[in-house]
Amino acid sequence: MRIDALQYRPWTRAAFEGMRDGGLHAVHATVAYHEGPRAALAEVAEWNRRLRDWGDVIRRVRGPEDVRADDRVAVMLGFQTPAPVEADLGLIPAWRDMGVAFMQPTYNQQSLMGSGWAEARDGGLTDFGREAIREMERVGMVVDLSHAGERTALEAAEVATRPLAVTHANPRAWRDTGRNLSDAVIDAVVEGGGVVGFSLYPHHLPEGSATTLEDFCARVAACVRRWGAEAFGIGSDLCAGRPNATVGWMRDGRWRRDRAEAAFPAQPAWFRDDRDWDGIAAGLGAAGLGEREVEGVMGGNWARFLRQALPEAGA
Amino acid sequence: MRIDALQYRPWTRAAFEGMRDGGLHAVHATVAYHEGPRAALAEVAEWNRRLRDWGDVIRRVRGPEDVRADDRVAVMLGFQTPAPVEADLGLIPAWRDMGVAFMQPTYNQQSLMGSGWAEARDGGLTDFGREAIREMERVGMVVDLSHAGERTALEAAEVATRPLAVTHANPRAWRDTGRNLSDAVIDAVVEGGGVVGFSLYPHHLPEGSATTLEDFCARVAACVRRWGAEAFGIGSDLCAGRPNATVGWMRDGRWRRDRAEAAFPAQPAWFRDDRDWDGIAAGLGAAGLGEREVEGVMGGNWARFLRQALPEAGA
Repeated sequence: MRIDALQYRPWTRAAFEGMRDGGLHAVHATVAYHEGPRAALAEVAEWNRRLRDWGDVIRRVRGPEDVRADDRVAVMLGFQTPAPVEADLGLIPAWRDMGVAFMQPTYNQQSLMGSGWAEARDGGLTDFGREAIREMERVGMVVDLSHAGERTALEAAEVATRPLAVTHANPRAWRDTGRNLSDAVIDAVVEGGGVVGFSLYPHHLPEGSATTLEDFCARVAACVRRWGAEAFGIGSDLCAGRPNATVGWMRDGRWRRDRAEAAFPAQPAWFRDDRDWDGIAAGLGAAGLGEREVEGVMGGNWARFLRQALPEAGA
Repeated sequence: MRIDALQYRPWTRAAFEGMRDGGLHAVHATVAYHEGPRAALAEVAEWNRRLRDWGDVIRRVRGPEDVRADDRVAVMLGFQTPAPVEADLGLIPAWRDMGVAFMQPTYNQQSLMGSGWAEARDGGLTDFGREAIREMERVGMVVDLSHAGERTALEAAEVATRPLAVTHANPRAWRDTGRNLSDAVIDAVVEGGGVVGFSLYPHHLPEGSATTLEDFCARVAACVRRWGAEAFGIGSDLCAGRPNATVGWMRDGRWRRDRAEAAFPAQPAWFRDDRDWDGIAAGLGAAGLGEREVEGVMGGNWARFLRQALPEAGA
C-alpha cells in the first residue's frame, strides 16, 4: 500500500488519475495554509464538489476503513494551520465532522497554539494548544508537527497521549534548516508511536533539487536502522502544477509588509510527480531495505498509524 | 472634558443618554473580545445602525475633531483582541476605515501578536506583532496594552514609535494581579508619552468592591506625583447591565474545555455607573489634585492623546 502524507496540487481530476496510475492509494491533501473559518469553509465546499463529481477516481476518508488499496485514491483532508479553529475549541469537532483528518497546531509563524519553526522566538505550546491537542485526540484528528518550532514540538509530544505525525519533514542532519527535525523531535515522535514522513521538497533535501535518489535512499535506510522500520513514511510535499505566485503566499500568508519574491524549486529528476513512486520503492530496496521495510516506508506505516489515529465509524 | 477609555455596556439608547446626563463627552466602546472577522463585522454593522439611528445622542469618532465637548457622546470603537485581523496585515487599515480606533495586540491569552497576562508563559511580542504595531501606527489605530503580558507589553513599548495606551488597568502595587501593571510597564508607557487609564473594575481595585473613593483618589494622586499629571486618565471597564453569563465568555472565550462559573462583581458604591462621574472628580480634588490635574485625569489627558493618535481627516 502506498500513501503520500502530503501534497498540495492543483486539484484537477487529472492529478488524481496520475496518483492512481502511479500506484498511490491514499493522499493527505492540504486544504488550508492560512485561511480563517470562512475561507476554509469555501475550500471544504470545493472538496465536497470534487468528491461528489469524481467518485470513480477518489474516495473521502472518514475513518480507517476508507484507507485501503483499490483503484480509487483515498483523500484525507488536512489543515497546515490552526487558523480555521480560531480560539474556539468547539470548532475542532466541527472540522473533523467535515472530514478534516489532519491539523498542524502551528504553521511557520506564531499561532494561537504554539510557535512555528520560522518564528524568531519559540514560546512553546500555549495554554490553548494544550487544550486543542486533547480535543484533537478525542475526536481523532491527527496532530501534525511538520512546521512546529522545536520547543513547541517537544512540548506537544509531552502533552500527547496518542501517536503524533510529522507528515512532511526530514532530519535536520540531512540539511540544517529549522524546517527539518532535530534528533530530539524525531526521538519524541518515534517514542510515542508516531510516524515521520520524509519530504521530497528540494528545500528539505540535502542537496536540494540535485539530491540523488541513491543519496536519499541511503539516508532513509540509515534512519530505519537508527529509529526502526515502523517509524517512517513519505510526505512528498509535492506542489507540481502550482504557479510560482503561490509560493510566497504559502510561506508567509499576508502578515508581512515586505514579502520576498519566490519560486518553486525544480523537483529532483527522480521525483517529477506521481509517475515516479515505483523508482523510489526500487531505490529503497537497492539501498538495503528489505521488502517489508520498503512497503512500510512507502505507505504501510502510515496505514497502520491511520488505523489507530482516525475515529472508528459511528464514534 | 470627560472621557471614559473603556466601557462594555448593553448598547441601548438609554445607556448613552446616561453618559450624556452624567457629563461624559466620549467613550471607548468595546466591539470585540474574541470575535473573528465575520463576527466582528456583524458587530460593526450593529454599531453603524446605532450611529445612524441615535445621531442626536452619539457621534462616531473618525478623527481628532470628533472628540469634543458638546451634547453628544463621541463613540470610539475598539477591539480588545486582534482576532478580527487574523494574520492579515491588510485588515488593519480595513478595520480602521470602519472606525475601529483602538486595538489590543493581545487579550488574556496568546494571540498571533503576543501573549496576554493570563497565558501561562509570556513569549513576548511575535514577529507579526511587530509588523502589526507598525501598521497600526501608520493608520492611526491606538495600540492598547491593557491585557498584555509583562514581556509582551515591554517589547511592544520598545517597538512603538508613537504613544501607547493602557485604556483600563491599575498599578500592580494597588493589587497584585497580572492584569494590573508593573511599575516597569507604567514607566515605559509614560516615557513614550502614553496614557494609562485607571480601571474602576472591582477586580483591579485594591479592596475590590469595598474600595473607598478616598482610597482610590489618594492612590491616583500618588501616581500623579510619581509619574506626572499628564500620564493618567480613566478607563472604567464599566459593564453595568450585562448579564452574569457574559463574564465567562468575556474572560475565556471558547478555548477552554472547562470554564469556571463567574459573575460580575458589585460596583463600588461611589461608581454605580455614569451617574457618578461628578463624585469622582470631587474626590480627586479632595485628595489634593489641582483643578487642571483633575481635568486632565477626568479626560483632558485622553483628549490630548487622541488628538495625536487618531488620523487627521482625509489622511
